[in-house]
Amino acid sequence: MTQFINRKEDIVQEAIDGLIATSGGRIARLDGYPHIRVVLRNDWDRSRVALVSGGGSGHEPAHAGFVGPGMLTAAVCGDVFASPSVDAVLAGILAVTGPAGCLLIVKNYTGDRLNFGLAAERARAFGLNVSMVVVDDDIALPDLPQARGVAGTLFVHKIAGALAEAGASLEDVSVTATRVIAGTRSIGMSLDTCTVPGALKEDRIARGKAELGLGIHGEAGVEQVDYSDARSAMAIVSQKLGAFLAPGGNYVALLNNLGGASVLEMSVLAHELAHSDLAGRISHIVGPATMMTSLDMRGFSVSLCPATPETLAALETTTPLHNWPGVARLSKPDIIDLPDGLRPIRPLASQHPPTRDFLIRCCEILIAAEADLNALDAKTGDGDTGSTLAGAAKALIKAMDRLPLADHTQLYRAIGQELSETMGGSSGVLLAIFFAAAGDAAASGQTMGEALQAGLARMQEIGGARPGDRTMIDALEPALRVLPQGIAAAARAARNGANGTAEMVQARAGRAAYINTEQLRGQVDPGAEAVARLFEQLVAPV
Amino acid sequence: MTQFINRKEDIVQEAIDGLIATSGGRIARLDGYPHIRVVLRNDWDRSRVALVSGGGSGHEPAHAGFVGPGMLTAAVCGDVFASPSVDAVLAGILAVTGPAGCLLIVKNYTGDRLNFGLAAERARAFGLNVSMVVVDDDIALPDLPQARGVAGTLFVHKIAGALAEAGASLEDVSVTATRVIAGTRSIGMSLDTCTVPGALKEDRIARGKAELGLGIHGEAGVEQVDYSDARSAMAIVSQKLGAFLAPGGNYVALLNNLGGASVLEMSVLAHELAHSDLAGRISHIVGPATMMTSLDMRGFSVSLCPATPETLAALETTTPLHNWPGVARLSKPDIIDLPDGLRPIRPLASQHPPTRDFLIRCCEILIAAEADLNALDAKTGDGDTGSTLAGAAKALIKAMDRLPLADHTQLYRAIGQELSETMGGSSGVLLAIFFAAAGDAAASGQTMGEALQAGLARMQEIGGARPGDRTMIDALEPALRVLPQGIAAAARAARNGANGTAEMVQARAGRAAYINTEQLRGQVDPGAEAVARLFEQLVAPV
Repeated sequence: MTQFINRKEDIVQEAIDGLIATSGGRIARLDGYPHIRVVLRNDWDRSRVALVSGGGSGHEPAHAGFVGPGMLTAAVCGDVFASPSVDAVLAGILAVTGPAGCLLIVKNYTGDRLNFGLAAERARAFGLNVSMVVVDDDIALPDLPQARGVAGTLFVHKIAGALAEAGASLEDVSVTATRVIAGTRSIGMSLDTCTVPGALKEDRIARGKAELGLGIHGEAGVEQVDYSDARSAMAIVSQKLGAFLAPGGNYVALLNNLGGASVLEMSVLAHELAHSDLAGRISHIVGPATMMTSLDMRGFSVSLCPATPETLAALETTTPLHNWPGVARLSKPDIIDLPDGLRPIRPLASQHPPTRDFLIRCCEILIAAEADLNALDAKTGDGDTGSTLAGAAKALIKAMDRLPLADHTQLYRAIGQELSETMGGSSGVLLAIFFAAAGDAAASGQTMGEALQAGLARMQEIGGARPGDRTMIDALEPALRVLPQGIAAAARAARNGANGTAEMVQARAGRAAYINTEQLRGQVDPGAEAVARLFEQLVAPV
Repeated sequence: MTQFINRKEDIVQEAIDGLIATSGGRIARLDGYPHIRVVLRNDWDRSRVALVSGGGSGHEPAHAGFVGPGMLTAAVCGDVFASPSVDAVLAGILAVTGPAGCLLIVKNYTGDRLNFGLAAERARAFGLNVSMVVVDDDIALPDLPQARGVAGTLFVHKIAGALAEAGASLEDVSVTATRVIAGTRSIGMSLDTCTVPGALKEDRIARGKAELGLGIHGEAGVEQVDYSDARSAMAIVSQKLGAFLAPGGNYVALLNNLGGASVLEMSVLAHELAHSDLAGRISHIVGPATMMTSLDMRGFSVSLCPATPETLAALETTTPLHNWPGVARLSKPDIIDLPDGLRPIRPLASQHPPTRDFLIRCCEILIAAEADLNALDAKTGDGDTGSTLAGAAKALIKAMDRLPLADHTQLYRAIGQELSETMGGSSGVLLAIFFAAAGDAAASGQTMGEALQAGLARMQEIGGARPGDRTMIDALEPALRVLPQGIAAAARAARNGANGTAEMVQARAGRAAYINTEQLRGQVDPGAEAVARLFEQLVAPV
């Protein structure tokens, strides 16, 4: 699978420039391309503690996407999955550090530790007050003393960011960051590997398997587990994390998209997390959101951090960065009763023999036309127009005794309701709309002719078909237009309109839009034919 | 590729429940599962115009993810890529519509038009004031009068949402929505098809091809084009959109991730958009962000809407919904000068023959040990420890004339600087950190012994290795501990420490951590051996 990139060498720079260009001037970068790629707040006055993070690229929006008020002051960006140089980190520190000092937030990878560590030493030689914390939240490798830093890093960014923004001292920010790191645990699971730009995609996860305990650099997970569904996936993750929870106290969960899971999947995973064994210990949640990715990896991670009042207060402070999804109580969905009125109000049935006779005659005309209309439809569609109309007509005859026949205003709506319940497909909905809108017009005092015109107008508006589009409208529209001159005139107009559809070789609505020109030529549209037959036979029944 | 879902039938419900559970109580749902899936604001008092949107699922975060203050009042969710029923839409309308009325915002697909349209008719029969607008922003099929509704719908949600939130009348909101729709144009491009839950993934896009003008339901694009890189992809999209721009006036662009592009790729595409032929006409941008997806499709779309003052004002109003990325000026990246201090400050060279002799002797010991140390490393590592140390030692001898030999405080830092520039790998960085930290300690008045201990402590902190981890620290730590008793004691301690590494069969840091136990048994760590040899031979040179 190809990707939306240009030259491999330019990816990180172009991505940074794209991020800055769309930031509304909120962030800027240092003039150090290609080796020094530092993104920093454009409104920074060095009056408070600076927070500098970063590392290899490929984890977007981390870290540059979290530079802004209330989070990071600067991000130092290496190549994809490669630590930035000591000089780059030093440039970032020097660019943002004032008298209040600077905290480096580093994920626990050797390259990052060393390069950020040496840069800190160099910055100290300039007399700057620089501290460094190392995030090691991953529990995938419990025997490794050097646990990796993964998405739990976001907790540190946000909490330290809130403190620094509020003017806390470097010592206070560092102590808090250290405490957050000590309490934070994460694990991830993936169904597929990521696509490293310029490298062949590794295909090591078989169908029916998932990798558990993966890092965020495409490295293999600690183990492959059987994968069946989202529920069992979250159960495994919950069980692993559960083993690390301290007794008592609630946690904030951070549900992170590793890059390639769909938003739909992430919501399903959120649902599973809310129903997992951990749910009783989770009071708040950050996400689901795409925060610390491994490029396009179809995976997720869950991070947990103790929900102390101080932690929650810091997580809840606002930031204009839309990549930070906020923190919310994890709650059972509120369910609101269905509104009244979903069951249609049936008007009182009433008798009116002439109306009854007229409607039954209309229905019988359509029932008699079933075979002819089906045959016509078979040439240009799926051959069921006749059956659909005949079926609706038969149902309407059966419903005759519950219709408000003596109240024509109510009658339109009632017919529309019956048709929408008994007639399948879009034609049923369109005719229901026709009669409902006609009923509205009649109810507001319009004549029958005006009411039917109003129905036609609404049907066209909703259905989108216009005269000339080869639909029933090509017969109905001219017929209704001349209806004030009598039904015979309407019948002639409908027939002319219907016949005209045989020359319309470019269907623009309905199913015939998918049929090619030559198949359509010479064939009358079955919907228009039905309208013409109805009017013709009302004038001169067979 | 499998997905993070459970039963296909439950996806939409579970995703909605996950969304609500993580919303902090901001949204709720109607009690209509499984057929009626309506998400609505939990704080809604019907005092203003209600905005109801929705359609098939699979476009997340649209539409339920945009329900909240300043955007939608309710979203009606169908199955994946299938319109919701008339009853479901009606339930949504009835649940939120008050005296101010309701606007339905519908994407231009037959099913949605009909079902929302009929629901509107039914709601009107209850005396509710309901309007409907149909979004048709897609330009992919210019000959089709029924242009599809795609990501440009977000402009309508946000702009109408801002007006409704501010208390505008239904007529005003509808007129504005209609105007926005008339001016909005979109087109999308994808490198791969989406994975429809429960269906086999269609594999219709060959490598080196992209689909242009695709819909958001997995339907094929209007054409397949050659794909080479992000730049040419954006050029094609720009050219297609450019043909539809009205003369004069600026536009707001909305850059949408169709679901499966990585955040890195989206930033690269933003960079390309900012440098495209369209850039001169784009004053503002929304995104890049994941807003209207086609499940996990690796694609993007660009939508343009005229940037009138009214449009911008509405787009700029705040909403707590993090799925809305905000609108920003599209600007050239601000570039800030590199800070001073990246070039290390070289202390003034000075002469001090005893120090010079001592340093050269240390270097010569390491140079002489090259072959032995390489041989040792070959058994447990990559065989270059001797060469790395000898190389650094030779470079240090060469640098002797520029070192501040008479100022021991400065000398530590200067040695650190030389090592970081000449010695590759993590050991070079670690020794640089050792000497830099020792220099800091010496500068603050500590004795040589204390300064070296401070260097050791910092090296351990940054490098993460502890005594017992089978590294040079196993010799260095005991040596420095007894150094106050003299160099002979230190040499004995270093030798004991180094020999002890042969029994450490579980390396916990450095490259030997990847070697299995049996290969390590009986082998002394080459770094520890180097330290031991250095001290031993300083006592009793060969």
